[in-house]
Amino acid sequence: MNLDSLNALDREGFAAALEPVFENAPWVAQETWASRPFATVADLHAALFAVVQARPDAKKIGFLQGHPDLGGAAARARAMTASSIHEQGGLGLAALDDAGFARFETLNAAYRDRFGFPFITCVARHTRGSILAEFVRRSAQDRAAELEAALHEVFLITRLRLVALVDGPGAPHTTGKLSTHVLDTSIGRPAAGVAVTLFEMDGAEGRALVATVTDGDGRTTEPLLTGVPLRIGTYELHFAVAPYFAGRAVADPAFLDVVKLRFSIAEPEGDYHVPLLVAPWGYTTYRGS
Amino acid sequence: MNLDSLNALDREGFAAALEPVFENAPWVAQETWASRPFATVADLHAALFAVVQARPDAKKIGFLQGHPDLGGAAARARAMTASSIHEQGGLGLAALDDAGFARFETLNAAYRDRFGFPFITCVARHTRGSILAEFVRRSAQDRAAELEAALHEVFLITRLRLVALVDGPGAPHTTGKLSTHVLDTSIGRPAAGVAVTLFEMDGAEGRALVATVTDGDGRTTEPLLTGVPLRIGTYELHFAVAPYFAGRAVADPAFLDVVKLRFSIAEPEGDYHVPLLVAPWGYTTYRGS
Amino acid sequence: MNLDSLNALDREGFAAALEPVFENAPWVAQETWASRPFATVADLHAALFAVVQARPDAKKIGFLQGHPDLGGAAARARAMTASSIHEQGGLGLAALDDAGFARFETLNAAYRDRFGFPFITCVARHTRGSILAEFVRRSAQDRAAELEAALHEVFLITRLRLVALVDGPGAPHTTGKLSTHVLDTSIGRPAAGVAVTLFEMDGAEGRALVATVTDGDGRTTEPLLTGVPLRIGTYELHFAVAPYFAGRAVADPAFLDVVKLRFSIAEPEGDYHVPLLVAPWGYTTYRGS
Amino acid sequence: MNLDSLNALDREGFAAALEPVFENAPWVAQETWASRPFATVADLHAALFAVVQARPDAKKIGFLQGHPDLGGAAARARAMTASSIHEQGGLGLAALDDAGFARFETLNAAYRDRFGFPFITCVARHTRGSILAEFVRRSAQDRAAELEAALHEVFLITRLRLVALVDGPGAPHTTGKLSTHVLDTSIGRPAAGVAVTLFEMDGAEGRALVATVTDGDGRTTEPLLTGVPLRIGTYELHFAVAPYFAGRAVADPAFLDVVKLRFSIAEPEGDYHVPLLVAPWGYTTYRGS
Repeated sequence: MNLDSLNALDREGFAAALEPVFENAPWVAQETWASRPFATVADLHAALFAVVQARPDAKKIGFLQGHPDLGGAAARARAMTASSIHEQGGLGLAALDDAGFARFETLNAAYRDRFGFPFITCVARHTRGSILAEFVRRSAQDRAAELEAALHEVFLITRLRLVALVDGPGAPHTTGKLSTHVLDTSIGRPAAGVAVTLFEMDGAEGRALVATVTDGDGRTTEPLLTGVPLRIGTYELHFAVAPYFAGRAVADPAFLDVVKLRFSIAEPEGDYHVPLLVAPWGYTTYRGS
Repeated sequence: MNLDSLNALDREGFAAALEPVFENAPWVAQETWASRPFATVADLHAALFAVVQARPDAKKIGFLQGHPDLGGAAARARAMTASSIHEQGGLGLAALDDAGFARFETLNAAYRDRFGFPFITCVARHTRGSILAEFVRRSAQDRAAELEAALHEVFLITRLRLVALVDGPGAPHTTGKLSTHVLDTSIGRPAAGVAVTLFEMDGAEGRALVATVTDGDGRTTEPLLTGVPLRIGTYELHFAVAPYFAGRAVADPAFLDVVKLRFSIAEPEGDYHVPLLVAPWGYTTYRGS
Repeated sequence: MNLDSLNALDREGFAAALEPVFENAPWVAQETWASRPFATVADLHAALFAVVQARPDAKKIGFLQGHPDLGGAAARARAMTASSIHEQGGLGLAALDDAGFARFETLNAAYRDRFGFPFITCVARHTRGSILAEFVRRSAQDRAAELEAALHEVFLITRLRLVALVDGPGAPHTTGKLSTHVLDTSIGRPAAGVAVTLFEMDGAEGRALVATVTDGDGRTTEPLLTGVPLRIGTYELHFAVAPYFAGRAVADPAFLDVVKLRFSIAEPEGDYHVPLLVAPWGYTTYRGS
Repeated sequence: MNLDSLNALDREGFAAALEPVFENAPWVAQETWASRPFATVADLHAALFAVVQARPDAKKIGFLQGHPDLGGAAARARAMTASSIHEQGGLGLAALDDAGFARFETLNAAYRDRFGFPFITCVARHTRGSILAEFVRRSAQDRAAELEAALHEVFLITRLRLVALVDGPGAPHTTGKLSTHVLDTSIGRPAAGVAVTLFEMDGAEGRALVATVTDGDGRTTEPLLTGVPLRIGTYELHFAVAPYFAGRAVADPAFLDVVKLRFSIAEPEGDYHVPLLVAPWGYTTYRGS
């Protein structure tokens, strides 16, 4: 859908078009309609969210209560069908084993008891581990702080939905980028042909997200992650440098076989460049830009 | 036992004293006796081995045939009792699962068929993975090269046994050292209180060998490994830097939680210094000395 | 001038248009004319040079003899007026003191005695020091090798002239790039506002070529050098990091005040990226890309 | 002189023996005598200084007034003879040119006008540049802070004198150490035979303090500086790496010819280890320990 055509709709059409953004709360779009036209997608999102923010706390809480339980049995059952549940579930949560699911249900029940609304988080910005950490951290906050935190998550969720739904100028920045680069400091040239694998870590376990090989410029053809929010969590980049250095006079076995760079991402909309400067007997890494 | 008192023994006493060094081959010590006295332990070992080397190939092969099968069923049964088997077995081989053991038995049978003597290697200088790699590499050699390789392993095994048995000047260098050091380049000081764990890797699996904490000089109180040959193989050093950097303005989660340095050791008698130069957002490592 | 219009000229017009490229040798362009039209500037240059290469050695030498002496008194007098001399002189040679000039004259006389033609080099690709080093190295070659070397310099000189003179597709790559980047590994962000000065070194003396300041991305607005061949020689990059780190808890005086990266450029048409990864107490640099 | 024999002296002998420590103030040692015996040299120094500190401010100022002017004309004339002047002068101040000396005299006169006593600093802990910086900084303090600062310098001066004069247990730590180490990360071994020069910098000018060559362990036979306080100031270490890397396939000229590490020392009694981790196309340095 195009921002111009959205601006041209009547009130009912406008609300219907935006229904997937603020689910179960058509009044948000209805009230926003009066402020048309919007010059940018970001302006439209700000106007929509301002309608929510203008409500008194009791109304905000009612609004939050309209959201599905994350980790609840109902969510579980519906995980594969409803898109909003899908957003809240992600691959990480869908893959929870029974014990993990029980943990979520317990946390969720305690949270709802304490605050009177379900735990809401923008799952697309998280790994399973960071959701759990958030759950624990936010469960310990006082109610005012947590109400604000929950609304901020609604802000993030609806922003992603709106950007996916509406084309137009001034789209808010909702994606991050992770890239790498391998430089051979023993020959002063990019290291070409190095196999690189990116893992999302869950404790000691890793799930391979990307497996690629460096090109002649020591980079990967595509960034490792791009066009999506980077999920908050811990990652490892594995570089198979032993085959790359093979043939130069090195030890057997080579001092470096697989270089593992382990790092965490904290900013889903950030630019993370994690290069490897490597010689046969040493290396350097850092967060670059 | 002391080198001086060994030098003073008669032929039978001398051979008896050195019996554990060249097992099942008392003639080695008996012939060496004539060359007494030995000024250093290294001289004694050189003289013992020279007796073996002076034999024609047929005799050398007979000598090798007197060694136990590595990985054979008999070795397995006797692993806990006979010291020479223990040396040949080590912890790594003892822990082989059935499939692994079957693999060794197959390799061993093929090796014996090809060369007419059992596979001999100085197990104290190896991890399980490097024994397997050696087995495969040496099985493909021609007979002359392999005879030389097997005798060199006898040289290494008996050298370790002799050094353990006889005190005296001029002991050959049979041990290596692995050490580390953590330096915080954001404050120009050693990083104290960083938990460090050393793992011996077997594929993706790691077995923790040492768990320690850096002292005020960023070092560990004792070297990570010392006084023994370093087993050829792959290792990982894990440094828990997130708690160390906690409290400084960093991201949540911190960019670096556990730094994993993965490296291989190729020289059992070498000095490996593997330091970590670390700032909150980057690090450098290398083989130092 | 445009390649298309050049292709459309008659023989005399073509030769006149290209006169500045092969000075004192109008026959080069005249003979090349028959091969029109040229699809790319690189094709045109290859065709021009092929005419020279097709000559027998005696003619090639005559052609070289038509070039001015580098460092000769005549060149000195004309340094400010004639463009070809200017190319051969550059700022570095113009600034030679009397002793330096005498050195050049001596080398030049010896060279001409030995080879029978003047020393020719593409000065735009050199600093004063590298010309001298070239002079010494090439003076020691045998005549056949040196004839080839001198013609290769004519190739380089005329390629630069042609690219400056003729617009069109397929221009040969005649320029390099030098860039830098400052990354603060203690905060994981580009270091903004760091004063950077690039010096061309002549022994211990440096001549400042560029003085700039890093922007919010830790880079300089423009590459340090671009759009020209990089002169072979030694350079220093000075980064005033003390003001950048001021205000963080560091020593007085700060461990690092000015970081000096000294490096040499060997490929005038290369891409040199020389970054600084810096924390208050340490840094890393390397040739990147 | 030995601490035991000093402890055994009578009051006059004790004061005479310590006369060179607190010049022109025999009462300091005379009053300290009553607290004999001293178990350590540090205890003795603490007791001596406590006598000064116990005086009211007016007396302390009188005590300071007994010290010679730093940079005054009298000091200049006597620089070569009187040991206390020599301490205050050092090589750096002796080498001042006329303009530099005039600057010091102006600062000194202004300082004396403001505070009523001469500027005192422990010159052995300073380079010329750091004395000047201290002079400017301290001249701007209020009188109470500066009185304390001047007495602290007396503490440092007399501590050095006492350590030089009296042998005995528990000598205070008055010296620092500067060392280096060159590690070749392209071969995983110490870089042997690298020429290293240490310069003390004064602006852009450097004075070579040490010229040496790395040994087989990549270190220098002796620390670069040891057994003396390290003078606060800026230094450069130059490593001639091009000859070291010559013969490996590198560019001509080599990317790295002389690596210059520039750093400042702020703690005269500190341990500064400034290593170079170098490959043909990049390097790392840091303050180690």
